[in-house]
Amino acid sequence: MKSRAAVAWEAGKPLEVTEIDVEGPKAGEVLVRNVATGVCHTDAFTLSGADPEGNFPSVLGHEGGAIVEEVGKGVTSVAPGDHVIPLYTADCGECKLCKSGKTNLCSSVRETQGKGVMPDGTSRFSTNGKSLHHYMGCSTFSEYSVVAGVSLAKVSKDAPLDKVCLLGCGVTTGIGAVRNTAGVEPGSNVAVFGLGAIGLAAIQGAVMAQAGRIIAIDINPSKFELAKQMGATECVNPKDYDQPIQEVIVDMTDGGVDYSFECIGNVHVMRSALECCHKGWGKSVVIGVAGAGEEISTRPFQLVTGREWTGSAFGGVKGRNLNGFVNSYMCGHIDLDSFVTHNMKLEQINEAFDLLHEGKSIRTVIHF
Amino acid sequence: MKSRAAVAWEAGKPLEVTEIDVEGPKAGEVLVRNVATGVCHTDAFTLSGADPEGNFPSVLGHEGGAIVEEVGKGVTSVAPGDHVIPLYTADCGECKLCKSGKTNLCSSVRETQGKGVMPDGTSRFSTNGKSLHHYMGCSTFSEYSVVAGVSLAKVSKDAPLDKVCLLGCGVTTGIGAVRNTAGVEPGSNVAVFGLGAIGLAAIQGAVMAQAGRIIAIDINPSKFELAKQMGATECVNPKDYDQPIQEVIVDMTDGGVDYSFECIGNVHVMRSALECCHKGWGKSVVIGVAGAGEEISTRPFQLVTGREWTGSAFGGVKGRNLNGFVNSYMCGHIDLDSFVTHNMKLEQINEAFDLLHEGKSIRTVIHF
Repeated sequence: MKSRAAVAWEAGKPLEVTEIDVEGPKAGEVLVRNVATGVCHTDAFTLSGADPEGNFPSVLGHEGGAIVEEVGKGVTSVAPGDHVIPLYTADCGECKLCKSGKTNLCSSVRETQGKGVMPDGTSRFSTNGKSLHHYMGCSTFSEYSVVAGVSLAKVSKDAPLDKVCLLGCGVTTGIGAVRNTAGVEPGSNVAVFGLGAIGLAAIQGAVMAQAGRIIAIDINPSKFELAKQMGATECVNPKDYDQPIQEVIVDMTDGGVDYSFECIGNVHVMRSALECCHKGWGKSVVIGVAGAGEEISTRPFQLVTGREWTGSAFGGVKGRNLNGFVNSYMCGHIDLDSFVTHNMKLEQINEAFDLLHEGKSIRTVIHF
Repeated sequence: MKSRAAVAWEAGKPLEVTEIDVEGPKAGEVLVRNVATGVCHTDAFTLSGADPEGNFPSVLGHEGGAIVEEVGKGVTSVAPGDHVIPLYTADCGECKLCKSGKTNLCSSVRETQGKGVMPDGTSRFSTNGKSLHHYMGCSTFSEYSVVAGVSLAKVSKDAPLDKVCLLGCGVTTGIGAVRNTAGVEPGSNVAVFGLGAIGLAAIQGAVMAQAGRIIAIDINPSKFELAKQMGATECVNPKDYDQPIQEVIVDMTDGGVDYSFECIGNVHVMRSALECCHKGWGKSVVIGVAGAGEEISTRPFQLVTGREWTGSAFGGVKGRNLNGFVNSYMCGHIDLDSFVTHNMKLEQINEAFDLLHEGKSIRTVIHF
């Protein structure tokens, strides 16, 4: 079948909105129609060429809200007409990692997903006979996309797909990192570095966890208003200080915060986030994705004196539990609407990337 | 009063065994008579000059078994005749850190201890009128020493001080890191890097925690026999492999270990220890103390995919709970005797350092 899609032909070039060919689902696969998709920094990161797993040409996008069109042989978890959110962290329930009960990382489709193909090693996308890669197991920048059955979260039909699509990545990642990965307790002090969608979501997560102080940190003060609206108790611009930001935060908090979150992907900020934690118990969670080959570093004394450095992907959330987040949105406990600063048609998708790079949008939602 | 002591006059020079002057205890302080002391790598580390907190001249030693001689004003936790183990991590029970219930790091005497003086900022040690620094709040290389009252663990009088002195540092550190900091569960797989006293103690801790596989790693295969005696299920020499040791361990364990422990103080090994952990849940604990200015590094992807990097000092053990370790020794659950490879008099203390550097001893115990 034919589908409108934005194709990434090569790193660093704008996407081309065009018509592509989409093959039907094979066994274990599902054909979905994307109703809406967010445009996330990770898409921009891969498009830039910095992502070591980036494959070109490809159909990017991983923050979708979709409706099931057709299921391949053996798929019983969803049926045509179901509303779904595609998952870049699959949830097969059967692999060693799923069965461990300790992680949301599922190994079932990991290897082929990283190579930009379906689990059988082939692609369902092509144009003029030339195969296109899949992306993060989702490829939500195509109206019609084929995904693995284990890579879909069924969600309530009451929920607006052009909002809950944001739960496919950034918002869930931020909230989940605070609640699942860190386990922030009531009354604890939290620092959030970077006020993009993930950072703002982390602030929401900290509010949900009833944190005491929620310190929002960004070098772009235009982000502060929204951060405060979402629950930040204080906003700090590192450019206002001569000292390293970790020292500023340590001074503000009588020795450091209980939890910190790096929501940028900057290895230097990751260090600051660790080092602004309180000795003895402070825990720092890396959420941002750094460029290929970049490394974090610190003095081991930071760890020996009781700090913990960890991270998570997709907020440690098991994909098939995503409807819980959808319900929280429907009940007003999660604010998604404020993330949507722009709505656009697929044809305008390159503008959405421009806004992202300029720091002028939190999320642009593309409507098919 | 006069006391026999080994004095470290300057970095890199042998100790001088001589007679020094020891002042009586001031308020909140206790005069103890050390019966025995271990010689630990940390003493050697400070003596080498690599320790950024090293002060000279000083009386080193921090692994002592002692008897209380005299208590200063206000000390009620111990009385003359009590058997005690001096603590380099004090336990005041009153400071923010003690009250947190989350850490064994106590801030009560931290600042002065790091400067090599008593809490009032002065020293009780001198020779020919020249003041000598205290060390780690213990200075067990002097027969008579003055320590803060909050820096003593009262222990059972039944326990031989020339054995339980080892619980003042290395053995408690290794066992505590496994049991308190990591929280190793029955059946989990563990890797221990470095088979000195701390590594061997970590192996004992893993046995106590009923770990499944306990993989002992050292480039000195002469350590393997004792490691196996203490409970290692496998011993690995990185020199036997061309690949990085983390890859070897990952291959051996179907994806990595659940817990790893760095017991050396080598920042490169700390990286290996992290990276040999299983994705999704592996936890690596830094126990070794690295040289001044040295840094650990890794790709943040290691953390984002669910590994945890942490550390602890004195095994996360609250000093005043140390008698629990003494009881475990008395019941045969902790083997201290095998650590004592050499017994010497104070006059031979430089030989003890030589054996340590040559990797020929686990612990030499000095008898006063």
